[in-house]
Amino acid sequence: MSDNKVGIYKFVAEPFHVDFTGKLTMGVLGNHLLNCAGFHASDRGFGIAELNENHYTWVLSRLAIELEDMPRQYEDFSIQTWVENVYRLFTDRDFALLDKEGKPIGYARSVWAMISMETRKPADLLTLHGGNISEYICDKECPIAKPGRIKVAQETPVAEYLTKYSDIDINGHVNSIKYIEHILNLFPIETFKEKQIKRFEMAYVAESYYGDTLSFYREEVGKDEYDIEVKKNNQEVVVRSKVIFK
Amino acid sequence: MSDNKVGIYKFVAEPFHVDFTGKLTMGVLGNHLLNCAGFHASDRGFGIAELNENHYTWVLSRLAIELEDMPRQYEDFSIQTWVENVYRLFTDRDFALLDKEGKPIGYARSVWAMISMETRKPADLLTLHGGNISEYICDKECPIAKPGRIKVAQETPVAEYLTKYSDIDINGHVNSIKYIEHILNLFPIETFKEKQIKRFEMAYVAESYYGDTLSFYREEVGKDEYDIEVKKNNQEVVVRSKVIFK
Repeated sequence: MSDNKVGIYKFVAEPFHVDFTGKLTMGVLGNHLLNCAGFHASDRGFGIAELNENHYTWVLSRLAIELEDMPRQYEDFSIQTWVENVYRLFTDRDFALLDKEGKPIGYARSVWAMISMETRKPADLLTLHGGNISEYICDKECPIAKPGRIKVAQETPVAEYLTKYSDIDINGHVNSIKYIEHILNLFPIETFKEKQIKRFEMAYVAESYYGDTLSFYREEVGKDEYDIEVKKNNQEVVVRSKVIFK
Repeated sequence: MSDNKVGIYKFVAEPFHVDFTGKLTMGVLGNHLLNCAGFHASDRGFGIAELNENHYTWVLSRLAIELEDMPRQYEDFSIQTWVENVYRLFTDRDFALLDKEGKPIGYARSVWAMISMETRKPADLLTLHGGNISEYICDKECPIAKPGRIKVAQETPVAEYLTKYSDIDINGHVNSIKYIEHILNLFPIETFKEKQIKRFEMAYVAESYYGDTLSFYREEVGKDEYDIEVKKNNQEVVVRSKVIFK
């Protein structure tokens, strides 16, 4: 049973999935993490496909990634994922990133809600599938801090971006991975030459759509630590992010 | 031997790899095609890793994709690839896109050169590995037209884009797949609501780099047929593209 609680999935760092340093990009890692969450849930009967039949869907609320290293071009790596906790309205899912030898080189934490696709209201996770999800709670250690509070007072955006065809996912929303790319594009390439991302956080607050103008507000809140807030059409906050370099 | 000439690779259409219509994006398909080219060459001893040891590398010159359909979210699909011809300075590599039942739903043609990483000059493919590549020439049919001539007279760009961190690959160039995304972003989302891409061509002419400003020139050369030229810093042509909708 314990084995069945942790899913493990294998990958290879593809040439167009690494940045100029030859290491996997944060966007591609995020994509793999979310796919692994999907595989793990699906294999256990509470994936998107099963939920869709009942008009429910998973919504990603928070993602925090902390890394010692990243896989290099053509290197094999794998991702483990498991459910840490299930509450009435949220579930915590953790991840470990393992290098080609199986050694952990990073961890991630995510927070998910389930909503009704008809009412957009959150569903009670504890009663879903007769409480079935709780059976997969696993006490494997995830030795990184939980997603924290991100606060940006800065009122002048550092960049604006008009959303385009390639940003939009099957739900008509700007996709969760594209925000990661746009946020990292706020930094000059020199930053990534001199430093590596130690910790990266995303808080998904609201949806943005095709044709929305995204404004990016950035604040240096500590040495090598940046809080970022993205608003759509100069009004509503869409996502917040924290980037800590080392 | 005939079996060994055609490589076949399996995929699934991941959630963040489909567009708002739920179909695989052209950029992701392009990425998979180029990866398959790499797998196929590697498995036969003339991949990038083997070449790098001798300071040679493959350079993609042309890509033409013609599609009847695209895989939908979560659908399995596969890609076949084989070498159609080897000349002194170029090799033609073809692809078939197969749907979940193994039925061909599209084809692609590509043209590659090999260059010395030291001199940037092209290498003689016929003498490489003692003419070994020629042994893999395969007469499997690829029933789509070869890449054609793309010509843009338009002198006013429809868009400009300053290249950013996420655009740059391990060689320090804007990556081949990012051009595809930027080119398709020239079209309003309505185009993709009403139409599908029937044929898509890319001609990679020169490299662009971090901080270059790309200008996109577009001309409607026939009904639903667009030629696109991308220049860097308002001077040199970097890529040309043709998009035919149906």
